[in-house]
Amino acid sequence: MSLKLNKTYLEGFISEDEYSGVEEKVKNAVSELEKEIVKKDGFAGWATLPDNYDREEFRRIKEAAKKIRSDSDILVVVGIGGSYLGARAVIELLGGEFVNEGADLKVLYAGNNISGDYLLKIIEMCEGKRLSVNVISKSGVTLEPAVAFRAFKKLMEDRYGEEEAAKRIYVTTDAKKGALKGLSDVAGYETFVVPDDIGGRYSVLTAVGLLPIAAAGFDIDALMSGAKNAMELFAEPELEKNPCYEYASIRYLLEKQGKKIELLTCFEPAFNMFGEWYKQLYGESEGKDGKGLFPATLNYSADLHSMGQYVQDGQRILFETLLRFEKSNKEFTVEYIDGDFDGLNYIAGKTMSYINHQASEGVMLAHNEGKVPVMIIESEKRDEFNVGELIYFFEKACAISGYMLGVYPFDQPGVEQYKRNMFALLGKPGYSI
Amino acid sequence: MSLKLNKTYLEGFISEDEYSGVEEKVKNAVSELEKEIVKKDGFAGWATLPDNYDREEFRRIKEAAKKIRSDSDILVVVGIGGSYLGARAVIELLGGEFVNEGADLKVLYAGNNISGDYLLKIIEMCEGKRLSVNVISKSGVTLEPAVAFRAFKKLMEDRYGEEEAAKRIYVTTDAKKGALKGLSDVAGYETFVVPDDIGGRYSVLTAVGLLPIAAAGFDIDALMSGAKNAMELFAEPELEKNPCYEYASIRYLLEKQGKKIELLTCFEPAFNMFGEWYKQLYGESEGKDGKGLFPATLNYSADLHSMGQYVQDGQRILFETLLRFEKSNKEFTVEYIDGDFDGLNYIAGKTMSYINHQASEGVMLAHNEGKVPVMIIESEKRDEFNVGELIYFFEKACAISGYMLGVYPFDQPGVEQYKRNMFALLGKPGYSI
Repeated sequence: MSLKLNKTYLEGFISEDEYSGVEEKVKNAVSELEKEIVKKDGFAGWATLPDNYDREEFRRIKEAAKKIRSDSDILVVVGIGGSYLGARAVIELLGGEFVNEGADLKVLYAGNNISGDYLLKIIEMCEGKRLSVNVISKSGVTLEPAVAFRAFKKLMEDRYGEEEAAKRIYVTTDAKKGALKGLSDVAGYETFVVPDDIGGRYSVLTAVGLLPIAAAGFDIDALMSGAKNAMELFAEPELEKNPCYEYASIRYLLEKQGKKIELLTCFEPAFNMFGEWYKQLYGESEGKDGKGLFPATLNYSADLHSMGQYVQDGQRILFETLLRFEKSNKEFTVEYIDGDFDGLNYIAGKTMSYINHQASEGVMLAHNEGKVPVMIIESEKRDEFNVGELIYFFEKACAISGYMLGVYPFDQPGVEQYKRNMFALLGKPGYSI
Repeated sequence: MSLKLNKTYLEGFISEDEYSGVEEKVKNAVSELEKEIVKKDGFAGWATLPDNYDREEFRRIKEAAKKIRSDSDILVVVGIGGSYLGARAVIELLGGEFVNEGADLKVLYAGNNISGDYLLKIIEMCEGKRLSVNVISKSGVTLEPAVAFRAFKKLMEDRYGEEEAAKRIYVTTDAKKGALKGLSDVAGYETFVVPDDIGGRYSVLTAVGLLPIAAAGFDIDALMSGAKNAMELFAEPELEKNPCYEYASIRYLLEKQGKKIELLTCFEPAFNMFGEWYKQLYGESEGKDGKGLFPATLNYSADLHSMGQYVQDGQRILFETLLRFEKSNKEFTVEYIDGDFDGLNYIAGKTMSYINHQASEGVMLAHNEGKVPVMIIESEKRDEFNVGELIYFFEKACAISGYMLGVYPFDQPGVEQYKRNMFALLGKPGYSI
């Protein structure tokens, strides 16, 4: 089964009139994306990646992952933003929040914050464990990962000596230039490439995401196959036959109606970090020139008991996109008990995925009654193939959606301002407020 | 040092005209809260709790926590929404995301979702470990915790036998009625009380939050002292001398200006679950009658590299409240290295908390330049006393803010709709769509 867009709970929220004209808009967006794909110095390398990724590097990634799994207990991934979020999103969507529990190889993340408490705790957790490090940074000088890598480089060299440490440090960075590339050439680290034509938030299917995902024990061949499948499916030019274009169109039309917030929701706790990945993808691509839906996520059913009230009855500025996995990986069945003290015997014998599905229908119906338009993205299950498909779906829909909104979806001019201020306040040479 | 509200980055965003009249509004809100406090069947028991909590129950909580720490490796907390969020927020704010790593007693959470994969994983993690369970539910029949408790009750009885299991199951529920109270009376479980006059989202300083927090090894006396301190400080009637009333007023005025979203941000990864607690508190209290700011959180600096672009340049519908801890618990210092390959030597010798503080100033300055009004809540550090103070600050500000907005901050009428639909679709007797 391939990904489907279920519009049952969208009925009545968008009129025929509003729909007219949107097909033309989509066509123009697709044509802008196509121009970006072939443009020299363009940023749409992700769009054709499932077809033309570097097979030789892919083979090296799998080999490195195999070595890491054989000689390490922990892989520390040092990176921030797009340099770690995609990997963590996939690893935890596939393996759950507790993916490290009982795992042969645990993946820990460092360099994604400015907290001494956090960094010291990660270092403590590495004590007495066999370690590898994957540092991911295109420039090699981004503050947070640079601080963390400085600490881990020293730790590795103190523990293993320079030569052995060099065999346990894997660098994902620019192909030719930058601080990490220069260091790697001298120190002899194995390097992988952050491509020039793929921005951080679109990089999960490059070495940036693939090395940690493979090291965590997941099948990156299946992940790429899913993305390839999506690439073919979502090339379909007819709007009504293309869920990816439909999703982008509906976002556009609801935004035009005055909706301010897209809630991406899911009834699966493993969704948390995937939600964070989605927020970066859409927030950074569309949040510019005073435009863009604010991307927010809710993790049901936990968040029904916290933000459910707001969704049902708060300001009517939101619409909801439910990501639903039709099958769970394992099955739990509610048991019958004598006495029925908790009154649950009416669902005795039912599986948790049945209850989950029914709950999701009941909730979307209620949100509809509360005037919240809802789309459901239906994915078969949380496995590598379907997650690869989902990634490509969200990436392409984001590009199309951005173009429809009238922004360039591949830059992030607004992140320079705070960096300039921060460097000035930290006394970095050449910066001032 | 007590909590302060820093308004440096609010300058120019609210005019004198807008401020006039707000004092009267606050007074009215305070008087409404005072009425609620003395009302029979009111819901403001949390407001006087730091003064008049049940000392005898508090002593039993500490004893139970001591026993759990002595005879268990894992405490499974079964609850959803306000029945687990407060405890988890405090435990992780104080102990960090990895609080369980290396801890004598690990706290795991169940019954807060509808995922068989999750529940089976928690059960797997309990294998071979000495267990206690704290089930928290006022009615005892909320679907998610009821399903999880049914599973854990059986697991405990199979493993320990009924008699010993009964000594390891702690129930926090209604004082007199309900499914769990009835079961506890028969089975002999020790019970603690979810008070009638305190709603779930306000319950963290009752047994609901205190037992798991104490079991995790934190000092609940200091937590209550901090809340007591806040209770006295934030009773100050003069608006300009009361940061709690000021925060509520500024939220109100910015909402009137058309802001739709409050971003609560923090430069400390340990903040995540506290952010979730804040979202429930404000979302559920204010999100009704088509009103209420949408509460969202960002965890910096990670989220500067994902949502930073949106905050700087997206739709101008948001304001920001930065929660800043002035001291870190441990200190990490950046080391000098020869060669300076990463260009970080300009901060060699600086502590992470210095870098964190300078970064936060640079970022707020940038957000100001992007027309985002910013308040900073300054708290001394992440210890029990200051966290107790913070909790009371947010609780009282939420009540005042809700009354100013013109909603009743202590109900949640919108959460019934989806439950009715869900029960109908699950075939629960007496329900239909």
